[in-house]
Amino acid sequence: MERLPTIADVARACGVSMRTVSRVINGARNVKPATRVKIEQEIERLKFRPNPQARGLAASRSYLLGLVYDMPNALYLDTIQRGITGTCRSSGYELVIHPCESTGSDTVIADTLSFVRRSNIDGLIVLPPVSEMAALPPALDEAGVDYVLLASVDLVDPVHLVRSAERLACEDMTRHLIELGHRDIAFISGPSDYRSTRERLEGFRDAFRAAGLALNEELILKGDYGYHSGYSAGNALFSRRQKPTAIFASNDEMAFGVFNAAAEAGMSVPNDVSVCGFDDVVFAERTLPSLTTIRRPSLAMASLATEKLIALIEGRDDVANRMQAVVPLELILRNSTAARR
Amino acid sequence: MERLPTIADVARACGVSMRTVSRVINGARNVKPATRVKIEQEIERLKFRPNPQARGLAASRSYLLGLVYDMPNALYLDTIQRGITGTCRSSGYELVIHPCESTGSDTVIADTLSFVRRSNIDGLIVLPPVSEMAALPPALDEAGVDYVLLASVDLVDPVHLVRSAERLACEDMTRHLIELGHRDIAFISGPSDYRSTRERLEGFRDAFRAAGLALNEELILKGDYGYHSGYSAGNALFSRRQKPTAIFASNDEMAFGVFNAAAEAGMSVPNDVSVCGFDDVVFAERTLPSLTTIRRPSLAMASLATEKLIALIEGRDDVANRMQAVVPLELILRNSTAARR
Repeated sequence: MERLPTIADVARACGVSMRTVSRVINGARNVKPATRVKIEQEIERLKFRPNPQARGLAASRSYLLGLVYDMPNALYLDTIQRGITGTCRSSGYELVIHPCESTGSDTVIADTLSFVRRSNIDGLIVLPPVSEMAALPPALDEAGVDYVLLASVDLVDPVHLVRSAERLACEDMTRHLIELGHRDIAFISGPSDYRSTRERLEGFRDAFRAAGLALNEELILKGDYGYHSGYSAGNALFSRRQKPTAIFASNDEMAFGVFNAAAEAGMSVPNDVSVCGFDDVVFAERTLPSLTTIRRPSLAMASLATEKLIALIEGRDDVANRMQAVVPLELILRNSTAARR
Repeated sequence: MERLPTIADVARACGVSMRTVSRVINGARNVKPATRVKIEQEIERLKFRPNPQARGLAASRSYLLGLVYDMPNALYLDTIQRGITGTCRSSGYELVIHPCESTGSDTVIADTLSFVRRSNIDGLIVLPPVSEMAALPPALDEAGVDYVLLASVDLVDPVHLVRSAERLACEDMTRHLIELGHRDIAFISGPSDYRSTRERLEGFRDAFRAAGLALNEELILKGDYGYHSGYSAGNALFSRRQKPTAIFASNDEMAFGVFNAAAEAGMSVPNDVSVCGFDDVVFAERTLPSLTTIRRPSLAMASLATEKLIALIEGRDDVANRMQAVVPLELILRNSTAARR
């Protein structure tokens, strides 16, 4: 019985998914060269001729996108979800959310791949810090799933990336504090294994370097992006004999912790100490005083990532390639920072 | 050609889904009586004999649960998602989130049904206020999808419900304020078309009735559960000649708005005015002063709803029936309430 070879025959012969074969046929980029060559040879050998109507496997799509994350701030997650679901709605997709178990990068990647297999999603959006693990993109390429990463660093081809320019924004904020006359500026960093921690701290250092000022390393304290770590760092700084005149908390949650530590230490913000944050969560304009911070346009970034992902899924790789990969951030000056007295 | 009738034949003959037929075979409750009778007659007529191995349609499950909501508070949504995904993880399910378009109840129900059809979910969890629309349960029964509602009112059979006892908790909180010596107690209500608004306000009235005190209706102000409406209501109350000595904001967001209105009016909380809220969001213990509020155990309620839903999906209706349907709430007394001076 003679029958025409199908995409399934090619996939079986190569030991890859039909989606991966489909990607090679459609000229997508994110297939390993060795895999691509193997598939092209098998297509040749079997004399497989793709059916133009079947291209892109549109009929087999689940119209489900996945969102993978690891314990983000609730307000950030909410904004991201609104950005994604808003774009999904207009495109007919739905969103499956998958919080990872955070017990090391091997587990996170295995968990992500298992999620991709079980949930039958068409594509994946990954939030930092999971998105900033160097081992993730190759694993996703191998799994043959389309993906876009929201991140603070360039780890992948720009077609898979929506990156916020965090280092530059932190340099800008620090320069602003220096221009206000501050020299003893403390910095509360994030978790040491996050790439964003390094980016934000480097931006802080860049400003000192650019201004030709010496940086007091003792004013760099470790936090973990949580409220309590900001509160502890604030307590530690306010109990010193030589107190800083400004504190740059590398996210808003920690800045709120510093606010409460300042109140307990009898320090007035901004009269005795300027405080600034990073994120511009909705509470930042409601605190007393309101918080000077860096606005990460999370809603717009999530929408952009979703549009990019849908373009990749639908085989419009050229469209995805033309979309923005780096998003600038904005300083939001409010009442928690002032000129040094 | 003679073949045995299948579940698909029954479904086709009755104009219902195979899932609905399966539910009748498995003795589930949430099928309309008329539909049930029709299906049972068709089973008889076709001499269909269900295959015991096919019962429950386990093989056709998607292992996807859906979450439907309409613009909730970000912190509440985050807690709910953590409760659901934590339970999903241990049971092999994934969660599809679906924010509704909020342009009237007809649209919301149509949107929910369309989501159920397109996303191939096994079951649905619905948050208030969508969950409190009287037309929703019949529509979901008709669609033949399993569901559990998180709500403040009894609208459905307890097997589909996880209800928080909001009215009782609001009576308790109001009694607490009365016991502190307050009589001029203002109440800021939620949106007028939400059932929870009525429940919370009735609890407030119950306490006055029980104490034999007259209620000043002019002290009941309309809010919308948003920060700004709490701020406006606070401004209105603090600009009166006869100011209230206590303000019960019917959620935490509005209480935070009252805090800022009080600060601007030069009123000290709790020295000049006691303020309390409802929800116990994470920020409630971080404000200055910390907020007296009502703790709704949202994480536990979400876990319970998920366990109940999975039991229904897996045909263990007896287990779902034995699960709790009403969850008590707890007063959390902090520093924003004090005895009347």
